[in-house]
Amino acid sequence: MSVYNAPIRDMQFILNDVFKAEEFWQNNQQLSHLDNDTVSMILEEMSKFSKNVLLPLNRTGDEEGATYLGDGKVATPKGFKEAFSQYAEGGWIGLGGDPDFGGQGMPKMVTMLSEEMVFTANQSFALYPNLSGGACLCLYYAGSEEQKATYLEKIYSGKWSGTMCLTEPHAGTDLGIIKTKAVPNDDGSYSITGTKIFITAGEHDLTENIIHLVLAKTPNAPEGSKGISLFVVPKFLVNADGSVGERNKVQAGSIEHKMGIKASATCVMNFDGAKGWMIGAENTGLASMFIMMNYERLTMGLQGIGGAELAYQNAVVYANDRVQGRADSGVKNADKPADSIIHHADVRRMLLNAKVISEASRCFAMYVAKQLDTAKFSDDSETAKKANDRVALLTPVAKAFLTDRGLEASIDCQQVFGGHGYIREWGMEQIVRDTRISQIYEGTNGIQSLDLLGRKVAKNGGAFVTDYVNEILDFANNMTANHAIKQAMIDSANKLADLTKSLLGNLDKKDEINGCAVDYLQAFGYVSFTYMWGLMVEASNGKDGEFYTNKAKLADFYIARMLPRLDAHIAMVKATSQPIMDFDVSFFAVGE
Amino acid sequence: MSVYNAPIRDMQFILNDVFKAEEFWQNNQQLSHLDNDTVSMILEEMSKFSKNVLLPLNRTGDEEGATYLGDGKVATPKGFKEAFSQYAEGGWIGLGGDPDFGGQGMPKMVTMLSEEMVFTANQSFALYPNLSGGACLCLYYAGSEEQKATYLEKIYSGKWSGTMCLTEPHAGTDLGIIKTKAVPNDDGSYSITGTKIFITAGEHDLTENIIHLVLAKTPNAPEGSKGISLFVVPKFLVNADGSVGERNKVQAGSIEHKMGIKASATCVMNFDGAKGWMIGAENTGLASMFIMMNYERLTMGLQGIGGAELAYQNAVVYANDRVQGRADSGVKNADKPADSIIHHADVRRMLLNAKVISEASRCFAMYVAKQLDTAKFSDDSETAKKANDRVALLTPVAKAFLTDRGLEASIDCQQVFGGHGYIREWGMEQIVRDTRISQIYEGTNGIQSLDLLGRKVAKNGGAFVTDYVNEILDFANNMTANHAIKQAMIDSANKLADLTKSLLGNLDKKDEINGCAVDYLQAFGYVSFTYMWGLMVEASNGKDGEFYTNKAKLADFYIARMLPRLDAHIAMVKATSQPIMDFDVSFFAVGE
Repeated sequence: MSVYNAPIRDMQFILNDVFKAEEFWQNNQQLSHLDNDTVSMILEEMSKFSKNVLLPLNRTGDEEGATYLGDGKVATPKGFKEAFSQYAEGGWIGLGGDPDFGGQGMPKMVTMLSEEMVFTANQSFALYPNLSGGACLCLYYAGSEEQKATYLEKIYSGKWSGTMCLTEPHAGTDLGIIKTKAVPNDDGSYSITGTKIFITAGEHDLTENIIHLVLAKTPNAPEGSKGISLFVVPKFLVNADGSVGERNKVQAGSIEHKMGIKASATCVMNFDGAKGWMIGAENTGLASMFIMMNYERLTMGLQGIGGAELAYQNAVVYANDRVQGRADSGVKNADKPADSIIHHADVRRMLLNAKVISEASRCFAMYVAKQLDTAKFSDDSETAKKANDRVALLTPVAKAFLTDRGLEASIDCQQVFGGHGYIREWGMEQIVRDTRISQIYEGTNGIQSLDLLGRKVAKNGGAFVTDYVNEILDFANNMTANHAIKQAMIDSANKLADLTKSLLGNLDKKDEINGCAVDYLQAFGYVSFTYMWGLMVEASNGKDGEFYTNKAKLADFYIARMLPRLDAHIAMVKATSQPIMDFDVSFFAVGE
Repeated sequence: MSVYNAPIRDMQFILNDVFKAEEFWQNNQQLSHLDNDTVSMILEEMSKFSKNVLLPLNRTGDEEGATYLGDGKVATPKGFKEAFSQYAEGGWIGLGGDPDFGGQGMPKMVTMLSEEMVFTANQSFALYPNLSGGACLCLYYAGSEEQKATYLEKIYSGKWSGTMCLTEPHAGTDLGIIKTKAVPNDDGSYSITGTKIFITAGEHDLTENIIHLVLAKTPNAPEGSKGISLFVVPKFLVNADGSVGERNKVQAGSIEHKMGIKASATCVMNFDGAKGWMIGAENTGLASMFIMMNYERLTMGLQGIGGAELAYQNAVVYANDRVQGRADSGVKNADKPADSIIHHADVRRMLLNAKVISEASRCFAMYVAKQLDTAKFSDDSETAKKANDRVALLTPVAKAFLTDRGLEASIDCQQVFGGHGYIREWGMEQIVRDTRISQIYEGTNGIQSLDLLGRKVAKNGGAFVTDYVNEILDFANNMTANHAIKQAMIDSANKLADLTKSLLGNLDKKDEINGCAVDYLQAFGYVSFTYMWGLMVEASNGKDGEFYTNKAKLADFYIARMLPRLDAHIAMVKATSQPIMDFDVSFFAVGE
């Protein structure tokens, strides 16, 4: 029933007009083989696949869900296995992987668009290859040559899949207190024992082997996060010839029953003396994990875009079809008993809200992707370092702000459907339920905010922010388009600089970062969206066609109807953490 | 697993300290039999019932759901029948009903607190008696003496139940285009034919009869909303002696599968020449329906409070139990590997957000309830009229703003649980799913906003707003408490007056009301919350005990962390509808 047509036009616009992809590829030797035609073909292929294969499995997958069959076995919903095979055969799992290991070597600027389409069509499905991709990144950057040779090609090809085993029942955000133990064996391997929860794709029926990347503590490891090591623990041990061997002592104990992403198997994984091998050096497990975090967190942002985009497209169809009431500006469908609700301003307000969210989010994700690619592919170490710093600054914003806005857009578009939005068969409520997880996992959005304000802003005295603000001001001052977005960029960037300065002056209050982080990130997000609309307006300037003039109108709508929130978040941050911490802890109690 | 302890202390505070209930009852002859002890007993009883009987059925009801058994039969989840019997035997269904028909004659100021508890403990359950209450109100005010005698006592006693049949597949918001027909029979009855959807409690196994109140059109009725009549259509015809007779030709065709409130049976009702009797005069059906709308819409606001309150209480318990990370202000639980997350400022921020929402919402609902009671019980017609006008103004705000904030609070409190908030067994995701419907049904919150800005503000040139603003200013100027809320009330009330004036000046733009209504209602809501915090601070002033000093601190938090949103909504309204309507309708399309 759902519709989804990938917004290829907008993707191409952002890729080429805004971020000048071809020029960028020409300037980076490792990417110089790339051209627009190749990329267009990739986008067209995924557009078809997401629409024809993944979308039809979205609601059936939700209704059926993943199933725990007992005895450690998990079944994915009908059709997932075939879709996964096709996805793997198309080379999509290794789209961004190193060609030396069978990957396609595509930059993030391309893979993010493919990932967005997958997340839009089917959030649950997207998680299966997504976790494989995360595990490969970890192995690629921190694994030994032997480990890379053993696992990467198998995972890229979709024969095997990967997981990330971090969380334990008592340890989520606070990984320093994990209890899973890794005891060295004589043969250089380790014996892993412990329970991991919330393991996406921990068990399923899509691949012949599952490669778990597991955080655990060696005997006598230092306390806290400095004593964590990373291990690779295959479900089936791997024979010398690369074939699948003996069953390892790791098993799914159950799967969670969740609000959404029901077709994604979220497993409890029991490691009972399972054989594992250390990745990288002892006690550097968290660092290895963080290598892939920036990629993963951007990807979670894409999930937010997916929710917004699918919700928008379906709400647009409904708003055109549904007739109800007469337009305030005069009868529009005289032959019908009422006008399409698309003519009601409040319906348009909700749709435009979702539209400015999905387009600004896509642009922001591409901005971050370009920085990721610059960091990875640039030959100039100074350029790469600058890009890395920018990635560090913006990644928590991309994860949290894009998923927060994604939920908002989903809810607005559900509202367009009235009562029908609450009924399962229309699919809108599933988008809300599915998208909601993106704000929670991969580090809650509160944790992202702490990362931003604590590690990325306060720790360097706001240096990264200053660079970002200066870039925005430079761009705004040099833009040629005559549009209110120019002044909006200048004002909002200055406000961010001022807010940062004022916050940094309050750090004598011990709870200031924790108490202000979320609103600071929100403010940062709206400043960034303003910048994105500036980039898009400038890239549209002087070009013919409604697509471009509508970009300018969307920027107008953004300034009028969304940007005013910026000042609210600034005021909340400036109010400091004091009104929050003014209560005795005993206040937070419920009666008997 | 869920906890719920009714906030009796806060209810008593709002009832007695803020709104001086006993004094009010003494001054209204029809209520002068009431006293604090009676009311306290009622609250204590419902507190126990909601906690011990309704809460345990909340999650089991969600998991099992209502079931369509085929052949028009619907089963409620296990335990609902017994709970409904107890509820009925306790006299709760007729708590606000006329004693002449077996009701308890309680004012809305009391029934709203009881209703809040029911909605908090079990939103699905609450809807069964709630719809009965709505049908009784309609019958009471618009029905003939015979109709009242036939139905009211039976429904108040819980032997029978009631429904409201408005929506049709093609007609939700726009009731003017309904197709259900009512053809007169020779005996004065009508033959009703048509399909109604989204009928809450349309069929179930809780009562021996179900009394449908149905909107339908008589032959040759005027087009649109002026040609709608209201009919009472019992599932079983009623014999002369009041006993249940022959089966009427109305039957549930199916029930909806929904995002939440799954234990509430949402039915498709097929009327196939069912026998019905007109309520009130021909073509006055909508007017009759609107009699009860103000009560119902306030009740939906209570559902929002319920979501916020249950989410808050459970998040508080979790935040105290869960240890994760160390407090920024220094180690708190040295004997544990980490501190309770209640010590993290961001967790407190989310909890306080929910807390200021539930308490301000309760206060606002009580304010509206007192106006409803004044309108109903006052002997002075001028006083009653003034109260009626105030009710008209504030009812859409109570429905929409309280449910919008209720969803917000539910989501914030779900976030406190991290990943566990997404897992069904913890119950938090159910609160979000259940609460979501309150923004949609009984007139979407967009429709409430149009009602506010179109009918209640623009239609009288802002006269009702002016009165309300003056009341706030008077109160603020005369308050004795030395607290920032005084100035906040003055500023925000003046902003509302100014905003209203500016909007009324823009009504030459045809889409202005539709395009600005939602943000206007939001602004109105924050101004009202400011007033409520002022009322609560003043009522706490000079009183000893942490309960009272914490009220002042909550008001501080409200001013610092929530009120800044007001200016954002004002800015959005002042941006006019133009940026919304600037797009050609063809812009709202999706590709092939």
